[in-house]
Amino acid sequence: MTDLNPADANLAARLPEGVLRPVSDAYLDEPRGRLHGRAGLIAAPRSVEEVAAVVRACAEARVGIVPRGGGTGLVGGQVMPEGPLPLVLSLERMTAMRGIWPEENVLIAEAGMTLHAVREAATGAGRAFPLSLASQGTAAIGGCLSTNAGGVAALRHGTARALCLGVEAVLPDGSILRDLKRLRKDNTGYDLRDLLIGAEGSLGIITAAALRLIVPPAGVGTAMLEVPDPAAALSLLALAEGRLAGGVTSFELLSGQGMDFLRDTLPEVRLPLPQARWSVLLEVGLPEGLDPAQALEGLLVDAMERGLVRDGVIAQSGAQAREFWHLRESLPEANRRIGAIASHDISLPLSDIPGFIRDADVALRQGSDLRIHCFGHLGDGNLHYNLFPAKGRRREEYDGARKALTEQVHEMVMARGGSFSAEHGIGRLKVGDLARWGDPVRLQAMRAIKAALDPLGIMNPGAVLG
Amino acid sequence: MTDLNPADANLAARLPEGVLRPVSDAYLDEPRGRLHGRAGLIAAPRSVEEVAAVVRACAEARVGIVPRGGGTGLVGGQVMPEGPLPLVLSLERMTAMRGIWPEENVLIAEAGMTLHAVREAATGAGRAFPLSLASQGTAAIGGCLSTNAGGVAALRHGTARALCLGVEAVLPDGSILRDLKRLRKDNTGYDLRDLLIGAEGSLGIITAAALRLIVPPAGVGTAMLEVPDPAAALSLLALAEGRLAGGVTSFELLSGQGMDFLRDTLPEVRLPLPQARWSVLLEVGLPEGLDPAQALEGLLVDAMERGLVRDGVIAQSGAQAREFWHLRESLPEANRRIGAIASHDISLPLSDIPGFIRDADVALRQGSDLRIHCFGHLGDGNLHYNLFPAKGRRREEYDGARKALTEQVHEMVMARGGSFSAEHGIGRLKVGDLARWGDPVRLQAMRAIKAALDPLGIMNPGAVLG
Repeated sequence: MTDLNPADANLAARLPEGVLRPVSDAYLDEPRGRLHGRAGLIAAPRSVEEVAAVVRACAEARVGIVPRGGGTGLVGGQVMPEGPLPLVLSLERMTAMRGIWPEENVLIAEAGMTLHAVREAATGAGRAFPLSLASQGTAAIGGCLSTNAGGVAALRHGTARALCLGVEAVLPDGSILRDLKRLRKDNTGYDLRDLLIGAEGSLGIITAAALRLIVPPAGVGTAMLEVPDPAAALSLLALAEGRLAGGVTSFELLSGQGMDFLRDTLPEVRLPLPQARWSVLLEVGLPEGLDPAQALEGLLVDAMERGLVRDGVIAQSGAQAREFWHLRESLPEANRRIGAIASHDISLPLSDIPGFIRDADVALRQGSDLRIHCFGHLGDGNLHYNLFPAKGRRREEYDGARKALTEQVHEMVMARGGSFSAEHGIGRLKVGDLARWGDPVRLQAMRAIKAALDPLGIMNPGAVLG
Repeated sequence: MTDLNPADANLAARLPEGVLRPVSDAYLDEPRGRLHGRAGLIAAPRSVEEVAAVVRACAEARVGIVPRGGGTGLVGGQVMPEGPLPLVLSLERMTAMRGIWPEENVLIAEAGMTLHAVREAATGAGRAFPLSLASQGTAAIGGCLSTNAGGVAALRHGTARALCLGVEAVLPDGSILRDLKRLRKDNTGYDLRDLLIGAEGSLGIITAAALRLIVPPAGVGTAMLEVPDPAAALSLLALAEGRLAGGVTSFELLSGQGMDFLRDTLPEVRLPLPQARWSVLLEVGLPEGLDPAQALEGLLVDAMERGLVRDGVIAQSGAQAREFWHLRESLPEANRRIGAIASHDISLPLSDIPGFIRDADVALRQGSDLRIHCFGHLGDGNLHYNLFPAKGRRREEYDGARKALTEQVHEMVMARGGSFSAEHGIGRLKVGDLARWGDPVRLQAMRAIKAALDPLGIMNPGAVLG
């Protein structure tokens, strides 16, 4: 630590012993490489008390803090490329499971525990933690909560917010909020938990959380069903919900464009419905006494009679189900290899989705040869609506069009009462979108809360509100 | 309006035409008669714009506002017995359903719509709104949200907070937050919705809400099962959840004391398990292909083999199921007729419940002849733990002991990581409890938020934070 500037050296001397780490790229990147962070110091505290001590020292020194979990966020909330050098506060050493109560369906995890580790711990106790994301091997549970992560089972179990009973957090003044309750109901004042969840580290640092587990369903079934169009997919969802009493865990929309991308980039991925222009990956969790494959068979027959499904494959084994999911989870990698011009994480009222997909398709293709890959968590109204170069062209050729394309997509989404950030958050990449599209009254209230809790503005400066 | 004092007359003149109502007791009471409110003016605006105009006028005149829905709250949030005379803002004229989208499971209701009316509207469209409370005929949906109401189906569907997608609200400065989104996922900044929900009108007035509906399950089954003790009831819950894949909608604990109260006060209520010391009222909602009575039969046999259930009755008809629910819903009336010394709306970590019930029973009976009626939403860890006079004695004889008894109950609850207000909120009756038991860091953050959003302190003065 000999090459620190005097201000950082002064701050470093006031931190708990042994928390500093060498500054390295591992703490300064984000997955898509759009932003590169900077840092004066990297601190990796071992306890909530050490986190509080770091925050207090930063508050005194007026140094910004960028909290960092697994670093998998997609909107740059974990990297600060501009402004005075911040301290990056990594939760990597707070990885303990503080306790598990299978009989109450509760687990208390420290923020640095990976989502994968939380899921494994729950499974090891005969329970399940139903938050499920492609990046779960790296994503930390603290980051999942701070960004209110969504994923493929939110339809049934909600986003991260719905799976959290209580948090421990360090507030911007260094005080420790101890609210790790294992309670389903607690109406004793303002909902600070849900305020910290989704605040992307701009109101405090979540250091641990009491998480809600589930008893795994007796039977799980998985199917891929070809649908004539997105409207039929939505009718299929309603039909499935009616037949299965809330038993639909996942309902993912897949498109022919995605199949083409997989063929081109990951030819080893098997495609059960290779010709489908639109299809749905459906997972159900059902009670004892119902055979999941039979229940899905019944749904398939019913849906085909109604013209909602053209063809379908019901997984006959866990291996086949994993194969379906492998296809779904390979889509982001295929996208990466093709190279998007622009990606959009949007949500819409469910009944607006068919109209949006139709109209956006027409509007965006007008005078353009781009390819549209639209897929995602249809059951949640959450689409990943991504634009790609025509075959044989490079994304750079569209550099001049990128901004206008995103503007056009977001405009169509907002006109239909949708959201320009369904599950990824604001971070730094969508600060401009929030300023542009956010309700002014809402923004004013957010700024008032930020100023009240973080008057020095040291918590993740520039994130969310800019 | 001729008998107004000059200040109120001045304010009245600045309100939208026709919003004033005569001051009457109907706006000043609460169900248990513990507090009686006062008011300078009663206003019943017809639109969010009129609510905003009233709030702006009150802000200018520095007059406090007490929002009022159905007036069924149990902690005095709707009545202000002390301080400068407030304006009571009744939502009684905002009762429109603004829209319903059955295909997306969404309904938008104005705040004054009763919970019953919301439920009927959902049912009329082939859907269901799963919030269910004894007072639903009177309780307004705005009040249900402002107090984050719980009820008998929170185990499966969550409290009011979990059933709300977006709100329209008037903030303390009279600005209108327009956030009536019909989206499942929207990560665009701080969670103001959940901050307003449960704030009991102290941060703003919810004027409308986008509510989440469900597709009703194909089959519903209801049973009353006698259990040896509360610990067995909890094991039964875990067994049922494992067998039924999250299909348990309600799991209510009933006690022999409650049966005795019903015998004494409402002898017409039929008791299916008249001798049971502890029993459970269980409701399940199941997929097509499973007969609910058969599924409950299977659970009953399994549970009896494990020694978790001694006896049971499975409803063979809707009429019988309603009879079981009638019993459950008659308990509050029986309690009223007996006359409680003290009532407690507590929650505990599930695995602490048997120990709490055992220890509290011993502690409270020491040197006392009181009767304990412990019942409630066991699946949520939420008990109504109420103390009654010995048979033949009057509650007034225990007046001197009341405060110490409540203190003792809350102390035992808090020592086990529980809550002194699980579903009723703070209102005015539990302000002292919040100050006493609330985490100081949490209270400080709450006060900072209150000061930031309501610097004049006009929104429900004295509620929640005192």
